[in-house]
Amino acid sequence: MGTAIIILAAGKGTRMRSDLPKVLHKLAGVPLLWHAMRAGELIAAERTLVVVGHGGAEVQASAEAQNEDAIVVEQTEQLGTAHAVQQAEAALSDFEGDAIVLYGDTPFIAPATLEDMLALRQAGTDVVVLGFEARDPGRYGRLMVEDGALMEIVEAKDATPEQLAINLCNSGVVCADGSVLFELLRAVTNDNAAGEYYLPDIVAIARGKGMKAGVVICEEEETLGVNSRGDLAAAEAVFQSAARKLAMEEGVTLYQPESVYFAYDTIIGRDVTVGPNVVFGPEVTVETGAEINAFCHLEGCHVSAGAKVGPFARLRPGAELGPDARVGNFVEIKAATLGAGAKVNHLSYIGDASVGEAANIGAGTITCNYDGVFKHRTEIGARAFVGSNSALVAPVTVGEDALIGSGAVITTDVPAGDLALARARQENKTGLGLRMMQRLRALKAKRAD
Amino acid sequence: MGTAIIILAAGKGTRMRSDLPKVLHKLAGVPLLWHAMRAGELIAAERTLVVVGHGGAEVQASAEAQNEDAIVVEQTEQLGTAHAVQQAEAALSDFEGDAIVLYGDTPFIAPATLEDMLALRQAGTDVVVLGFEARDPGRYGRLMVEDGALMEIVEAKDATPEQLAINLCNSGVVCADGSVLFELLRAVTNDNAAGEYYLPDIVAIARGKGMKAGVVICEEEETLGVNSRGDLAAAEAVFQSAARKLAMEEGVTLYQPESVYFAYDTIIGRDVTVGPNVVFGPEVTVETGAEINAFCHLEGCHVSAGAKVGPFARLRPGAELGPDARVGNFVEIKAATLGAGAKVNHLSYIGDASVGEAANIGAGTITCNYDGVFKHRTEIGARAFVGSNSALVAPVTVGEDALIGSGAVITTDVPAGDLALARARQENKTGLGLRMMQRLRALKAKRAD
Amino acid sequence: MGTAIIILAAGKGTRMRSDLPKVLHKLAGVPLLWHAMRAGELIAAERTLVVVGHGGAEVQASAEAQNEDAIVVEQTEQLGTAHAVQQAEAALSDFEGDAIVLYGDTPFIAPATLEDMLALRQAGTDVVVLGFEARDPGRYGRLMVEDGALMEIVEAKDATPEQLAINLCNSGVVCADGSVLFELLRAVTNDNAAGEYYLPDIVAIARGKGMKAGVVICEEEETLGVNSRGDLAAAEAVFQSAARKLAMEEGVTLYQPESVYFAYDTIIGRDVTVGPNVVFGPEVTVETGAEINAFCHLEGCHVSAGAKVGPFARLRPGAELGPDARVGNFVEIKAATLGAGAKVNHLSYIGDASVGEAANIGAGTITCNYDGVFKHRTEIGARAFVGSNSALVAPVTVGEDALIGSGAVITTDVPAGDLALARARQENKTGLGLRMMQRLRALKAKRAD
Repeated sequence: MGTAIIILAAGKGTRMRSDLPKVLHKLAGVPLLWHAMRAGELIAAERTLVVVGHGGAEVQASAEAQNEDAIVVEQTEQLGTAHAVQQAEAALSDFEGDAIVLYGDTPFIAPATLEDMLALRQAGTDVVVLGFEARDPGRYGRLMVEDGALMEIVEAKDATPEQLAINLCNSGVVCADGSVLFELLRAVTNDNAAGEYYLPDIVAIARGKGMKAGVVICEEEETLGVNSRGDLAAAEAVFQSAARKLAMEEGVTLYQPESVYFAYDTIIGRDVTVGPNVVFGPEVTVETGAEINAFCHLEGCHVSAGAKVGPFARLRPGAELGPDARVGNFVEIKAATLGAGAKVNHLSYIGDASVGEAANIGAGTITCNYDGVFKHRTEIGARAFVGSNSALVAPVTVGEDALIGSGAVITTDVPAGDLALARARQENKTGLGLRMMQRLRALKAKRAD
Repeated sequence: MGTAIIILAAGKGTRMRSDLPKVLHKLAGVPLLWHAMRAGELIAAERTLVVVGHGGAEVQASAEAQNEDAIVVEQTEQLGTAHAVQQAEAALSDFEGDAIVLYGDTPFIAPATLEDMLALRQAGTDVVVLGFEARDPGRYGRLMVEDGALMEIVEAKDATPEQLAINLCNSGVVCADGSVLFELLRAVTNDNAAGEYYLPDIVAIARGKGMKAGVVICEEEETLGVNSRGDLAAAEAVFQSAARKLAMEEGVTLYQPESVYFAYDTIIGRDVTVGPNVVFGPEVTVETGAEINAFCHLEGCHVSAGAKVGPFARLRPGAELGPDARVGNFVEIKAATLGAGAKVNHLSYIGDASVGEAANIGAGTITCNYDGVFKHRTEIGARAFVGSNSALVAPVTVGEDALIGSGAVITTDVPAGDLALARARQENKTGLGLRMMQRLRALKAKRAD
Repeated sequence: MGTAIIILAAGKGTRMRSDLPKVLHKLAGVPLLWHAMRAGELIAAERTLVVVGHGGAEVQASAEAQNEDAIVVEQTEQLGTAHAVQQAEAALSDFEGDAIVLYGDTPFIAPATLEDMLALRQAGTDVVVLGFEARDPGRYGRLMVEDGALMEIVEAKDATPEQLAINLCNSGVVCADGSVLFELLRAVTNDNAAGEYYLPDIVAIARGKGMKAGVVICEEEETLGVNSRGDLAAAEAVFQSAARKLAMEEGVTLYQPESVYFAYDTIIGRDVTVGPNVVFGPEVTVETGAEINAFCHLEGCHVSAGAKVGPFARLRPGAELGPDARVGNFVEIKAATLGAGAKVNHLSYIGDASVGEAANIGAGTITCNYDGVFKHRTEIGARAFVGSNSALVAPVTVGEDALIGSGAVITTDVPAGDLALARARQENKTGLGLRMMQRLRALKAKRAD
């Protein structure tokens, strides 16, 4: 008996004022949609369905990028949440188990909350609704609970004053056995002012059939939905604040926590120090005791124990720093491995490359990885020393213990232990520097007359 | 019938603890004074007068930099606000229309508020005072209103307990017909403890002459004045917070809004994404759908639709990025245009240059635009490919489709389609790299003995 | 009669979840421990004793780095605060004067507060305890004061409800004559639930001997102790907020104060402007009127009046900028002096060097100071002009008024006034650039088939 997650992601999101579908706006470095998908992943959901509508192709591509097995179904007309869920029916015709309905614009439902819902479901409750105690219940539907059982969901506009005084509200998240869910949905009508099919109606329908409905209560913050960029910024603040707190509790040092930006999946080891103004993009792992200095930008990279990064360093996807490696200021590393103790300390671009253990890459070194059409690799051996302001024209290999003189353009391989030079002879022309400058200054003075 | 703006900017600002005149301290990237001047600009004021005193020459230069038509008059002695306004009389002797008195240290009076004042004036009120409901009225003058008419402005020190309980306060901003204003000012005396001529006295004088006075009420925040650096920081926080909120409402994505710094005139299109830690200086325009990544610094530049900037990029005045152009990390662009799709992705300085469509500027490229005395231009044609670590010694032209090998110093023009090389031949000296290093290490070991 | 400071720094700090001893975690750029040591320094304490336990060797090294005369004593068993202080007895056997007990994890006790304690001590109070009025007294010991005299310190667990209602609490900081202190400590027993020797017990013992005890009261914030990384972040926020406020009061302009990070000893002159996102490490001095632009990282450096730094500049230890010097974007300066008006504006690394007055260092210049084993110096004379993308291979001297052509690798000295060139001749191969690109594109197209 598995679990299926059905994520509603068809809404237009007019209030975002954007051409991008709402669920593709990013939170913590990835689309809003991915947060709901990841919750499903973390409870090991067997199937993930995403119901798309507005911007369907874009949303589909994003969903499949997060999970290549995600099943995307289209809701061509926006006829209400019940109708949206129904679009998933065909794709679940062979599915046995519980289904949970989530929302692409509601990123914070915790996996533990979903597990609580599944547990209540397994304990014999047919329809489990996720509720929360609202500080300001306003227009939320109210959950009418008696003796632990959910009796009814009353929309705010239909509620009596007594009912309005109840602050236990409907998050919209629902769990039921898959086939039961679709059976209940078939009974939902659009007999209401908006002419829409509403998902919460299944509670009344279930109870009418003698089924049992129940409630799991979560923190209001988990139910935070995003409808505007203001909401998105608020959600980001909630996420970042929680991520910073968690990192500190787990033994990470954040010198100025409020200036550190985490992605949804950042993993940082104990006793890592993170300076002010650091941005983590997705897929970053930093091991115990590494040092990420101020003004660093990391994404898709791995930093081993004892490595030091920055300040002002950029690690792009595919950067792999070995133990005690160092990447200094104004350095960009892309799709490149640095061996243990390797150093790239200043003003360099190392892309599509491997740098051996204890190699030293001088300031201003550039791996010329792109010829205008193709990308090529640079291999640098252990203990090699690349002099400053060198250009390594890939594909090229620099052997172990090789030494490259400053200012070289290396176009052919340098065997291990060799000294490579590619530099014009220096000529000093006596007194000419000063004379040239004097002439220029005189010219300027003349023009100024 | 036009409008004249008279901005009082003669104060010393002792509490700023600065050698810089108070109104020249910057808010949102420009002098405080400019904010009041801009409010005048936005209501299309015909004349802008700035009354200067302390640091007059500096303030004058700044005022004229903002608006070359600004008329600067000097108040040689600081005898009070009424006296300050009187200094503008001669410069307005030929002026017909309404005059508004603003303050150089009060940056947030909204153009809409000024229009409300002018509308009330045009509707027959002779003297219009701008009031606000103070959370803490303290030492502000109180506005005594009866049946919608302003009866009197009572200074806090002269007020009865009943009057002190009134929280409608005087902002100091006044509007009246120009000739009426100066007529009323002539009747103001300095018969008070400080021996100063106070502008608010014109209300009583006007009423004594049977004229009508009225009040327009604005938000207290608009009246925020700057007297210390603490006030300035508070004003900056107010400005930034409002600018971020407005940007989001207009469809800009700010991943970490609180880390983005806007200038007073930043214009950003819909669906532009702005990463954490971005600083906008004055005169920046970013078009729809462009991407400004983390850690960027922009001023005086234009970024077209689809262009991507940063992280760690600096666009200086005169940088013009065409559609889909890319400026990557550790790149500085100054007084240079980048054609559509042109790329400058890494560690480069492009100054006083034009880069053609789809040209690719390799990592570490420098335009050598300065010979120590003069600046010169570099022209790079469409689709040209400049190899990494190249120096382009201006004045120089690189033709369309030209290709420059890595590490070149280009001192003469490269015709279209040519391959330019300027590089010493590489020599590999067998085993010499390792031997040199071993010798150095042995020397070090010996010294350490 | 001198003063001795005894700093207790033996605790494990389990809640920090760190391998680093608690007192070595950094606040404002330096170990927590240094803050207490510095308070002693600022009241000109004659002796500084640090009692270490967990991580003793590391703590000792840090203490001696802050003050080479610091006396480190070991507490091998953790038997309570009284026992910890007793470890200092032998090292103070020849000392006459007052001793103050401080805590390595309590960084904010102000020097003025310590002076108040010493003054009360000198006025005849035998034991002076530092108290504070706690917003939430909770588990703190309560100070029982009668007629200005401290009668007793009652632990919260032993307190009556009336005593618990008292919010004057014990900070743990104590001052007494050194020999009296150790005499009292000998009378402390471990006759309590935890079996520990408690320092506060000396108050009762002193009073039992007819001595006088008294209280000095400080702000609760001063007594803030650090037990977790959350506490550390809170302490950092307190420090930074105070440092920003103080800087502004002293006449420094902070455009976005909340984004500026100060070290414990940052000194910034009046009318210095500091842009958004600036990080000051320890030992930085910036003189009047200098400009530190956005995104700068400074440590161990000195910036003279009128100098301009950044944006995106890094000044490392030993950087000394003369008056009106300029360090621009993506520039790193280390152990190097820049003369008056010298400029290093773009993408350069200047390390182990001196740059003369009004010298101009072109974009992309690298001082090659490291040969893989040794570091060497580069000397650049006044008014020298170093062309872009040059590498200066140290040890090397460039004379006054010398001119170096772009792209040079300078390996031998350049005499004053000379022009040095080291550059291969440029060759343009007609049409070859375009043909090479066409061939690559054709190859790509073929592969894509």
